[in-house]
Amino acid sequence: MLDALTAIAGPANVLTGADMGSYVCDWADRPQGAPLAVVRPADTDQVAAILRLANETGTPVVPISGNTGLAGGTQADGAILLSMGRMNAIRAINPAARTAVVEAGAIIADIHEAVAEHDLIFPLFFGARGSALIGGALSTNAGGSNVLRYGNTRDLCLGIEAVLPTGEVVDLMRQLHKDNSGYDLRHLLIGAEGTLGVITAAVLKLHPAPLANATAMLAVRSVSDALGLLNRLQRETGGAVQAFEYMPRAFVEACVAQIPGLRTPFESAYDVNVLVEVGATQPRAATPGEDGQPPIAAQLEEALGALFEEGALLDAVVAQNEAQRNAMWALREASAEITRLNDPVIDNDVAVPLDRMQALLDRIAAIIARHDPGARDVSVAHLGDGNLHFTCCPTRPDPDLMETIHTEVEDAAIALGGSFSAEHGIGLRKRDSMARHKNPAAMAAMRAIKTALDPNGILNPGKVLPDP
Amino acid sequence: MLDALTAIAGPANVLTGADMGSYVCDWADRPQGAPLAVVRPADTDQVAAILRLANETGTPVVPISGNTGLAGGTQADGAILLSMGRMNAIRAINPAARTAVVEAGAIIADIHEAVAEHDLIFPLFFGARGSALIGGALSTNAGGSNVLRYGNTRDLCLGIEAVLPTGEVVDLMRQLHKDNSGYDLRHLLIGAEGTLGVITAAVLKLHPAPLANATAMLAVRSVSDALGLLNRLQRETGGAVQAFEYMPRAFVEACVAQIPGLRTPFESAYDVNVLVEVGATQPRAATPGEDGQPPIAAQLEEALGALFEEGALLDAVVAQNEAQRNAMWALREASAEITRLNDPVIDNDVAVPLDRMQALLDRIAAIIARHDPGARDVSVAHLGDGNLHFTCCPTRPDPDLMETIHTEVEDAAIALGGSFSAEHGIGLRKRDSMARHKNPAAMAAMRAIKTALDPNGILNPGKVLPDP
Repeated sequence: MLDALTAIAGPANVLTGADMGSYVCDWADRPQGAPLAVVRPADTDQVAAILRLANETGTPVVPISGNTGLAGGTQADGAILLSMGRMNAIRAINPAARTAVVEAGAIIADIHEAVAEHDLIFPLFFGARGSALIGGALSTNAGGSNVLRYGNTRDLCLGIEAVLPTGEVVDLMRQLHKDNSGYDLRHLLIGAEGTLGVITAAVLKLHPAPLANATAMLAVRSVSDALGLLNRLQRETGGAVQAFEYMPRAFVEACVAQIPGLRTPFESAYDVNVLVEVGATQPRAATPGEDGQPPIAAQLEEALGALFEEGALLDAVVAQNEAQRNAMWALREASAEITRLNDPVIDNDVAVPLDRMQALLDRIAAIIARHDPGARDVSVAHLGDGNLHFTCCPTRPDPDLMETIHTEVEDAAIALGGSFSAEHGIGLRKRDSMARHKNPAAMAAMRAIKTALDPNGILNPGKVLPDP
Repeated sequence: MLDALTAIAGPANVLTGADMGSYVCDWADRPQGAPLAVVRPADTDQVAAILRLANETGTPVVPISGNTGLAGGTQADGAILLSMGRMNAIRAINPAARTAVVEAGAIIADIHEAVAEHDLIFPLFFGARGSALIGGALSTNAGGSNVLRYGNTRDLCLGIEAVLPTGEVVDLMRQLHKDNSGYDLRHLLIGAEGTLGVITAAVLKLHPAPLANATAMLAVRSVSDALGLLNRLQRETGGAVQAFEYMPRAFVEACVAQIPGLRTPFESAYDVNVLVEVGATQPRAATPGEDGQPPIAAQLEEALGALFEEGALLDAVVAQNEAQRNAMWALREASAEITRLNDPVIDNDVAVPLDRMQALLDRIAAIIARHDPGARDVSVAHLGDGNLHFTCCPTRPDPDLMETIHTEVEDAAIALGGSFSAEHGIGLRKRDSMARHKNPAAMAAMRAIKTALDPNGILNPGKVLPDP
């Protein structure tokens, strides 16, 4: 097997033993199993050759991107770990059509940088963008902080190329806004977490870069009040709100206490803190007026002023420059570090309809009060998407207690019409949740599709679908 | 079989022979084959029972909505014609979450009317909206005139319920903006033209109704110039362009000559006519200023003025009231009637990347000049989507000539990186195009999925996928 892999990818690109190094550890340096070998293909033909070989020999293959996943989707015991990192070309940027053609191994931050030269953005923003690869983001349908305005990764992708488990190359690299030519394999492969095919390239949709941003930290009485503000701001700005992020008091306090340099812009501590950002793509909303500030900032301040009058807003600080804006974002993006520093934490990634977030938070408070009243809830939420990253530091690392709280939070989300996995996906970690909550007919259909496309079950086996 | 169907749906809802009446004719009253019977289920349970029966007995089932399809997707010789028209409830509208829960048989215009009461829109607009049902629009991923701003039908749908060919009910009726819980069956079933499942209900995404619209007819030198105007308008309005429709001279002339009451707003005839509409959802863009007109209209007139200065704009008329706006839209929406009145026509629904539309039109002109110089090209285009509805009246109804032009237009679109089916789908009519142009690995994957979900091949057999 190793000889055959070497013949395909070259000796420098088949790594075993200690040479596998960081490929086999997750973002927090935790080992992710012992693969047979790490293979680093140079192009789509090599990916196809590797999959054909694996399919013929019944060898498992686990595709890996930037190792920033949170669901155990790249655990690779005994498998070929297929690293896409060498296929990292940004092949073309077409400013007129607002598209970029990239290979799966392109780092998201590199794509950001490349399109910025054309006054465009690829609006997929999350903390790990400096190491996450676009192929992994597509395979997990990554979300992040700008979904509210621009959608999930699948909404930012016009076309893909992928290699099926049997080694055939599906070429759907279209730059079209309308293409009703058969089943939508693009959407099927996006979010399939590398179990149905290996995405090797994509056509990405770009957007005009905002000409001006206005960012603020708010303290509000309740999450319901925050959503009222969101609706008002969307109306005033014509849907220009690009981020609306919730941070509770315990999260802000943990950031300030545990991470040097982080601070809150407020004098006092508040229970409900929200980072809001609006972006103006219209010159008339971005051009500074007589007071020196762009109309988009005035719109934000006007809406905040009205809310303050009504008593719903307790405090607000509008960033006056890029440094203040960055400081606000640094607080929000510290969530991964807070999780790491407070390990073990109970975490869960759930979503509910927007108007039920307050109910979810109320139920979670009751769950914590019932099982571990001293636990600290350091959750954050993409509030504008109804997506809560539940994160809770228990008073004692009792596995049963942690499991109970984890499960009850998930059940609460489901009871409110929610999902047990908003943006992190299923991988290995959420297979039990799939078994408990997913519609049985949907699960049976997924299994049938998996078997149809991967008859020998070689591609990322054991992920996403629970054992029957 | 008829007895069993009657036991499920009741005698009034199993129609045979002459009673099948209009169910078996398309929108232009052309017969669509001879079904075994028309069955009109009352609810999802009845749909499931019908499919179980059909699956056990190997009886073909063809789901039918409003009979407005253009690809022969409901041809039903010897099949149970499953009419969704009785399942037409608009179950709920949630203005806070901007969602509507509807059954598959709801008429699109009825949905428009129901949500308008809440100052919301369901932005799926096409000529047949008064008879097309939402289930059919989802099954074909319908497009229309507002895709530019709001996306195709799949982009307007958060959740679906569907019955699989084996009779299992897939419940994915989520109101969530993030839900990464397994393969995206919603996107797989949407656009599958009723070959993988029967969509029975959906959660639709609603948008704020524009507070003011500004509509204009333009005459420009070329389609390339029109696209320059589109980019400028998108920039000035922050992406508020909701329609950008192309009509060539021959189309406008045909409308005026053949349809009583239709007229062009121009004194002279022009080669390239464009209907443009921008919609303001922000109060500040919609509130009339001192001159009595809303800022959105001023933005449109400003952009037109600049283009006029540059010589790219030959003529322009901005609608001054709703009657003038309606008259402009009546011209555009006459396209189906023009097709009907000039039958036989050569028509094709293709898409190209936006920046290649001029090249496509140039190639089409050359194709017509080569084969039938006297033919009249009465095409229209959703120009902002790169979607051309090629429609050509040949000088003689010669099937070979018509087939040649049809094929060459399609090949020209493909050669420019386009699609042979932009929004009408495949049905029966485009299966040859699928065989000629679709990526073989993609086609093999589609066949495998079809077999996996419909092992007995009972659901809308022979559609979408060409014979192997």
